[in-house]
Amino acid sequence: MIYGVVMAGGSGTRFWPRSREARAKQFLPIFGDRTLIESTLNRLHPAIKNKDIFIITKQSQKKAFSKLLLDIPGKNILFEPIGKDTAPCIGLAAIHIQKRSPDAVMVVTPADHMIENEPLFRETVAAAADLAGRGNGLVTIGIVPDRPATGYGYIQIEKTDGRIRGIETCRVKTFAEKPDLSTAKSFLASGDFFWNSGIFAFKASVYLKQVEEFLPEMHEGLMEIQAGIGHRGYEETLDRIYRQIRAISIDFGVMEKAKNVFMVKGEFPWSDLGSWEQVYKLSPKDGKGNAVSGNAVLVDTGHSFIRAGEKPVAVLGLDHVVVVQEPDVTLICHIDRTEDIKKLIDKLRNNKMTDVL
Amino acid sequence: MIYGVVMAGGSGTRFWPRSREARAKQFLPIFGDRTLIESTLNRLHPAIKNKDIFIITKQSQKKAFSKLLLDIPGKNILFEPIGKDTAPCIGLAAIHIQKRSPDAVMVVTPADHMIENEPLFRETVAAAADLAGRGNGLVTIGIVPDRPATGYGYIQIEKTDGRIRGIETCRVKTFAEKPDLSTAKSFLASGDFFWNSGIFAFKASVYLKQVEEFLPEMHEGLMEIQAGIGHRGYEETLDRIYRQIRAISIDFGVMEKAKNVFMVKGEFPWSDLGSWEQVYKLSPKDGKGNAVSGNAVLVDTGHSFIRAGEKPVAVLGLDHVVVVQEPDVTLICHIDRTEDIKKLIDKLRNNKMTDVL
Repeated sequence: MIYGVVMAGGSGTRFWPRSREARAKQFLPIFGDRTLIESTLNRLHPAIKNKDIFIITKQSQKKAFSKLLLDIPGKNILFEPIGKDTAPCIGLAAIHIQKRSPDAVMVVTPADHMIENEPLFRETVAAAADLAGRGNGLVTIGIVPDRPATGYGYIQIEKTDGRIRGIETCRVKTFAEKPDLSTAKSFLASGDFFWNSGIFAFKASVYLKQVEEFLPEMHEGLMEIQAGIGHRGYEETLDRIYRQIRAISIDFGVMEKAKNVFMVKGEFPWSDLGSWEQVYKLSPKDGKGNAVSGNAVLVDTGHSFIRAGEKPVAVLGLDHVVVVQEPDVTLICHIDRTEDIKKLIDKLRNNKMTDVL
Repeated sequence: MIYGVVMAGGSGTRFWPRSREARAKQFLPIFGDRTLIESTLNRLHPAIKNKDIFIITKQSQKKAFSKLLLDIPGKNILFEPIGKDTAPCIGLAAIHIQKRSPDAVMVVTPADHMIENEPLFRETVAAAADLAGRGNGLVTIGIVPDRPATGYGYIQIEKTDGRIRGIETCRVKTFAEKPDLSTAKSFLASGDFFWNSGIFAFKASVYLKQVEEFLPEMHEGLMEIQAGIGHRGYEETLDRIYRQIRAISIDFGVMEKAKNVFMVKGEFPWSDLGSWEQVYKLSPKDGKGNAVSGNAVLVDTGHSFIRAGEKPVAVLGLDHVVVVQEPDVTLICHIDRTEDIKKLIDKLRNNKMTDVL
């Protein structure tokens, strides 16, 4: 049995002002016509059916989520009381899945990736799930890098030692944080470093076993929550325990410490849509390198990302700018600085301009 | 008898999107709280009273003008059917003034200047009017330059030869177009070049005599219009003749050709508010060189002019930008390019986005 787990608990800062505190990026069509979460679900079909897909999001996103009309059973939607990074989030999914099907494999994916060649993606996911189903391994999908990216974490592998469904598999040697450019170049040259996609496959039971080993307090909490599933007072128990749980990523808390870590090679084009700059890079551009949508007029402007709304935006004599105009607020930003939008949000909050957050 | 003539026929392009086709800059508080035209009138008081001030504007600005509630008699408001540059505009004022008071002196000023030390301005104007009243000279106010500006025309003088009311006066040798920087530097070093302020004083009769000499067809047209003043059909005559009249500036059409041209030295701080960049330069700035108004939040941004409205504008990681947000349109522009806003307007017109022009 294979379950999908879509992590959709992201906050609204990186794609502000399109995304907001109460309307995180995964609920928006950041790229293309579909919301990111719809694209993510669609990508898992038909290999994994909606009834076998869990979505985990945050309580604060409940309203935005309820508007989506996704064809997912209500009991498969899990709300985190607050965000605690990926290790507890996946743990929460794992206790629910384990309860439903003790030996099930879970395929965990973020809701905000941009992936092309979906058939190959599904084959790769199937290979990862196969590998995870065979034993007690933690399987991750590593993306074959096409450039020395500094914005991703990397996975270093032992040499490739097999194939499942035609997809290469191997044992993971180590994980590396986001490198600087020269390190990234040496990673790329070595041929044994891959981008850490954040897509995982393992048995729910195996993951929980690893949590027990490396994060015993978290495991205790998860077990207490699991015991309450289906009982009155579950929500209160979840809320109480989850708030005390340690916030930590699966990479740092589990994967880097575990022994039985495997990678399947992802050869599909992949990007985590982490910033407006990345959306710009992936967008079709005109002859001057501009990606423009909405009602915009540009003169002597290049290499820019302009997302106007109904009201026109007129840009003159600028390069490398990002403009995102929403009805109630406008962002104007250097394209190299879209990772720092949080600074603007902090300042808006300090200035009590919270209605645009 | 001294009359004031305020030329308020400017179009709405240079301060777009604050100014529009139907709401030219002179009707707006571009700088400070008062509209430019109110500041201009105020500056002439009490030396010249409202009943003796004529305002010339364009038919297309009638609606914006009517909203101003200026305390100027209706018969002193002259509407040009279309813009024809300054020579015919001043001619139109001259025929009305001459009819009212044959020997009157007219002091002509644009409506879009920024002038400090108003008492000194008024003394200088009074000196220019005195000089003009004494004979058949054309008098211009030349501003003592404090830097090698390339954005203004220059007046070269013979040596200073007198004083009226303590203001130095002299004969004009020649006029020079906007210079390049090295020429401007040599102008500044020479000490006998002054900025051409576009503020003039002469008898209406003297001006019309000069028009007769250098622009005889225009003179003929003006005489025909003058003959119709106070008669039925005046508007039709004005419209018919004015449309055929040659568009030419007073500098090029009259001043540069005339013999009796004098200058009085303007030692007051002066600027023609010709662009957002100039408004920026004159605006108070914060420690990072930003001039900000309205609801704006800036992070790592400097040397910029941000004019937000009610809806917030958030700027991150940019330098030397101009942002002007109006409810229906937003301008984002490099600060060195504000002179080229017309290019954006042309493009908006080509794209049929005329509702924001």
